[in-house]
Amino acid sequence: MRVSASVKRLAVIGVGLIGGSFALALKEAGAVESVVGCGRTKENLYDALAIGAIDDATTEAAEAVEGADVIMLAVPVRSMVPIIAEVSHLIKPGAIVTDAGSTKEVVTGELVGHLPNYVHVVPGHPIAGSEKTGAIAATAGLYKGRRTILTPGKFTDPAAVELVKKLWEAAGARVETMAPDVHDVVLGAVSHLPHMVAYALVDTLLKWDDQVPMLRFSAGGLKDFTRVASSSPEMWRDVCLDNRVAIIEAIDRLTATLGEVKREIEAGNEKALLERFTRCREVRKRITSGDQG
Amino acid sequence: MRVSASVKRLAVIGVGLIGGSFALALKEAGAVESVVGCGRTKENLYDALAIGAIDDATTEAAEAVEGADVIMLAVPVRSMVPIIAEVSHLIKPGAIVTDAGSTKEVVTGELVGHLPNYVHVVPGHPIAGSEKTGAIAATAGLYKGRRTILTPGKFTDPAAVELVKKLWEAAGARVETMAPDVHDVVLGAVSHLPHMVAYALVDTLLKWDDQVPMLRFSAGGLKDFTRVASSSPEMWRDVCLDNRVAIIEAIDRLTATLGEVKREIEAGNEKALLERFTRCREVRKRITSGDQG
Repeated sequence: MRVSASVKRLAVIGVGLIGGSFALALKEAGAVESVVGCGRTKENLYDALAIGAIDDATTEAAEAVEGADVIMLAVPVRSMVPIIAEVSHLIKPGAIVTDAGSTKEVVTGELVGHLPNYVHVVPGHPIAGSEKTGAIAATAGLYKGRRTILTPGKFTDPAAVELVKKLWEAAGARVETMAPDVHDVVLGAVSHLPHMVAYALVDTLLKWDDQVPMLRFSAGGLKDFTRVASSSPEMWRDVCLDNRVAIIEAIDRLTATLGEVKREIEAGNEKALLERFTRCREVRKRITSGDQG
Repeated sequence: MRVSASVKRLAVIGVGLIGGSFALALKEAGAVESVVGCGRTKENLYDALAIGAIDDATTEAAEAVEGADVIMLAVPVRSMVPIIAEVSHLIKPGAIVTDAGSTKEVVTGELVGHLPNYVHVVPGHPIAGSEKTGAIAATAGLYKGRRTILTPGKFTDPAAVELVKKLWEAAGARVETMAPDVHDVVLGAVSHLPHMVAYALVDTLLKWDDQVPMLRFSAGGLKDFTRVASSSPEMWRDVCLDNRVAIIEAIDRLTATLGEVKREIEAGNEKALLERFTRCREVRKRITSGDQG
């Protein structure tokens, strides 16, 4: 979607897959005039410059935020607060701070606490990604047709929320708004839980493999799990710490279901197992059709 | 691999993805002279004839096994024994009965018990598949580069084992031999457990979705799980009943690991979580390289 440039200066803190793709998509849509990228390693910033995601690069967040109209935080959630705490006094009045973090409630509260009240905070979370990392993996199409959730506070300036919504729409995303605590429960269930389960499964087999060599017989099903379990360890550690309550509830619910399956197998309850497996098949249709809707 | 035709008449009982692909691959390799396919539905048999997987079709197992040199059972494991019990007296002396079932110890014992001692039993299990079903999904290349495990008994005629090995190699598979109980533990861990976990996860979210709508926000990780959980319910019910002990051990081990992850999240143990997630990433390399080896 081509829109008239609505942001003069965008600062992207963390120019990896997520931040780099956001910048690329907005530049392609003509929704930003210029982008400054901020990161820890020069190599990655060079990549981001080379693919045209950013126009200027710096390793200093203080330099990046100065004069920026919109600041996108695309670093692991636990890194956001220290960065903002350090540079908050340099952000210009009326600027918008948004993010792409996987958890919302805890980190949003901390960000708001560190920012002057003349800065608008519009937390966001694009439901998109890949196990690939770095600017080199960024693409302008990453968010096309994917959902982005915004979790603004009740008193956030509606114009600021609308601008962030427009930016995500320019990147091709479908935008929904929800309360941060609901976001965290939903994502704890549909995203964080599958990752925890994949890690637990892979780790179980790794230990077992020392006693009975088995990993070389891995079939299709397991490969999907190992792909999920090869996501960024640092990011998932942060998600665990930040969305603790929702993830624990999710693990408890899964453990209960797994216990039911186990008891059905022990009892040789053919009917219950067949019903359960048949029901699960239907869910896929629900998810797949939701995708297209 | 092109080999001189070593089997005159192959009977495939159950001409779905697995049986159909076996027949197609052997015909392409010139390893069989003619194939008779046996199935319950005429539509599927017509498909198998149309794609050239079989030369003759019948809905009667009795007709299929008569005169066959090799009989491949490619039906769900719990269906194998009733079929063989019914037709065992029609199988010619010196013929080989083999199978492609996902579990080995229980079903092999029952098959041997129903067959005269002049029939050779060479149980097998190709580690290949897809969530697709039916002859229409069969391809000659399904087994190329994949492993097939044979679990012959100690007193099985070595020539019969060698012939089945040659057939799988002609289909492009790499063949290994192991004891049936070891097979069941290994597959219970690397295949059956991931399926049980995927079913449990999907079922947990299905129930939760009634309280908090969440399935429409499903991200990449969950989609892999829903794909695994859309496999044939009948087949997985049979696998559960047939490999009960190994699957229960696998579920117990996974539940223990999941409990460890939960406690690390509760305690905010950043170091333990990071170590665990990093370790899991390595496993993928191990599996991927094992694939190529």
